[in-house]
Amino acid sequence: MPLKKTFIVSGAQTKFGALEGVTFREMLAEAVDKATIQAGVPKKEIQAVFLGTFNPEMLIHQGHTAPLLLDYAGLRGLPATRHEAACASGAVALRAGIMAIESGLYDTVLVGGVEKMTSVSTNKVTEALAAAADDEFESGVGLTFPGVFALAAVAHMNRYGTTQEDMALVAVKAHKNAASNPLAQFQKEITLEKAMTPKFVAWPLKLFDCSPISDGAAALVLSSDKKAKQYTDTPVKIVGSGQASASMNLSGRSDLTSFEASVAASRSAYKMANLTPKDIDFAVVHDCFTIAEIIATEDIGFFKPGEGAKAVREGITAKDGAKPINPTGGLKAVGHPVGATGVKQAVEVYKELIGAAGANQVPKHNIGLMHNFGGTGATCVVNIMRRADA
Amino acid sequence: MPLKKTFIVSGAQTKFGALEGVTFREMLAEAVDKATIQAGVPKKEIQAVFLGTFNPEMLIHQGHTAPLLLDYAGLRGLPATRHEAACASGAVALRAGIMAIESGLYDTVLVGGVEKMTSVSTNKVTEALAAAADDEFESGVGLTFPGVFALAAVAHMNRYGTTQEDMALVAVKAHKNAASNPLAQFQKEITLEKAMTPKFVAWPLKLFDCSPISDGAAALVLSSDKKAKQYTDTPVKIVGSGQASASMNLSGRSDLTSFEASVAASRSAYKMANLTPKDIDFAVVHDCFTIAEIIATEDIGFFKPGEGAKAVREGITAKDGAKPINPTGGLKAVGHPVGATGVKQAVEVYKELIGAAGANQVPKHNIGLMHNFGGTGATCVVNIMRRADA
Repeated sequence: MPLKKTFIVSGAQTKFGALEGVTFREMLAEAVDKATIQAGVPKKEIQAVFLGTFNPEMLIHQGHTAPLLLDYAGLRGLPATRHEAACASGAVALRAGIMAIESGLYDTVLVGGVEKMTSVSTNKVTEALAAAADDEFESGVGLTFPGVFALAAVAHMNRYGTTQEDMALVAVKAHKNAASNPLAQFQKEITLEKAMTPKFVAWPLKLFDCSPISDGAAALVLSSDKKAKQYTDTPVKIVGSGQASASMNLSGRSDLTSFEASVAASRSAYKMANLTPKDIDFAVVHDCFTIAEIIATEDIGFFKPGEGAKAVREGITAKDGAKPINPTGGLKAVGHPVGATGVKQAVEVYKELIGAAGANQVPKHNIGLMHNFGGTGATCVVNIMRRADA
Repeated sequence: MPLKKTFIVSGAQTKFGALEGVTFREMLAEAVDKATIQAGVPKKEIQAVFLGTFNPEMLIHQGHTAPLLLDYAGLRGLPATRHEAACASGAVALRAGIMAIESGLYDTVLVGGVEKMTSVSTNKVTEALAAAADDEFESGVGLTFPGVFALAAVAHMNRYGTTQEDMALVAVKAHKNAASNPLAQFQKEITLEKAMTPKFVAWPLKLFDCSPISDGAAALVLSSDKKAKQYTDTPVKIVGSGQASASMNLSGRSDLTSFEASVAASRSAYKMANLTPKDIDFAVVHDCFTIAEIIATEDIGFFKPGEGAKAVREGITAKDGAKPINPTGGLKAVGHPVGATGVKQAVEVYKELIGAAGANQVPKHNIGLMHNFGGTGATCVVNIMRRADA
């Protein structure tokens, strides 16, 4: 079943980082203002709202976030639902927005995502993040996320010969791209030597292999074919959308060098779009850890299993390479406010496609892909977007 | 925009109550088995899953619940998203399922809801529930839910002359109905004298004015017009669905005797269904407190503002009255496992419509309505359902 009529007509994010003194609701309100009134979409045209937030319950003792955020963003009264799928919370909210437009119930909806993570201790953040894994069988007995991705890294190193330096090169690339991104948490380049600093978080993953703890929000407006052209001359069509799940705990997986939900979600999105990986000009993938980017580029079919690291080494995934990956800096250097990430990824793809990515613009930008996953890949969403005139 | 093609083809709930030794995932798996294989819907026909859970993060340190629950229910791999809107989490999941079917992306989807609340202390439950209100302006400074609904009760008493006895009569009716409901938490009748026992939770609300802390799960299967008749001879069409939000904190409300989101959501559902309150045979409404049922019956237009209590006194809302309300016992006596409640309400309406409510069957059952709201009514969902042959 193809998508018939869903377009992105605007998108924006706040600066990501440790935004001291800026609250949860203020961040989303800023992103919403940027994606609506500042982008030429009057707020009164928005008919429904789909929000992604991960764990504000444990981070700031706040659930029921949709009406709260909505109200503060000047949209009181609208139907508004919060969606959660760990680090894929933003992308599942986007999927709900897509289905809302495709259903014909609404013509213009807002999709947003936000997380406030830096107002509590790192221990408390770790505890909140751990809720994204299986508490009975995994996180509850001490396996936190750096540990899980360290297992994946070791498996990939063992099977394919991927090295710690390969992973460090992903961090170097992320920082290089983010250096020219004013909304990034880390706007500075790092050397390979620095990325290899042996501050181990969970061997073989070191400090620079890990995405940071961040605050931030993002929002975008979706419109139907009837309305999209009213708001912009450059609407972007969502041509494929796939979502899949996998066993929460690793004991249910047969392979740690690939995430089966990423494979399934991307295959589903390609099929819906009637496209293949060859047709995609660039991708924004979920690099919560450097190894996750390498595996993601294989799982979405850009490179064969085991050849993701080679693509990094050869510069193929660089901003000006043949298959740019995370040209604005990824989760690694832009930051990872969990509920905002999937929405921010869609905003990035949108901006690249319409040629509005500034210093982070990729050369070829007709068709782009976003890959957002949650937990240890137990949820994955892949969306493929195409400039309407491409 | 009318709903074109969404039908409920099966629905089930677990027993509600303090289910010692039964885990979160086991409860949902039981409800899913009852709503699929035991109801003649093979699991392999399910294409996507929409789940409501409220605050498992704080109750059992578990987020990212959709893939976890799905896996345990024998549905690993499917697209699965968790939806949260406080006590309306189940109904927003159902709305997502409706849009999924209406979009044409899926023909058969599962909607579920679950909450495990009795494995932690009452203090911890209170803290978890408080996350459904505005933490900065309301719950964080001590206003918990019994307090909020006590304010509503006082306002209603003051403006309309509603009495503590009127509220107690709602509890008496709920217990009477639940006495014949084998899945209810409290299967026994209470006298008016007992309901009036002056154990105040927040004056004027007493112990028997409050719904209990419960465990439980519910699930239902939605199918498109193409598929519905394959699973059942008595599909139930969802003919109207409305959702609205309101200010989270009461300072943003102009009136405490009515919940504006309930009014807006019901008007929206009636309009979509092209029906009026007169056309509805019975309703299942959100009676988290007895006063909430009285106000809900006014907000959905069954009775004029201020006349809800009179309807209770005159037996109009009794199971065999002219407008039965909560004929199976409501949240008050069946229980209120938060994420499950909205789905359970839909299951109840479905069962009444197809004449499968046993001793809790209402006499006239062509068209029914469910009303599920979250927090202090900051989110409300109203769905109207009609037997396909009615």
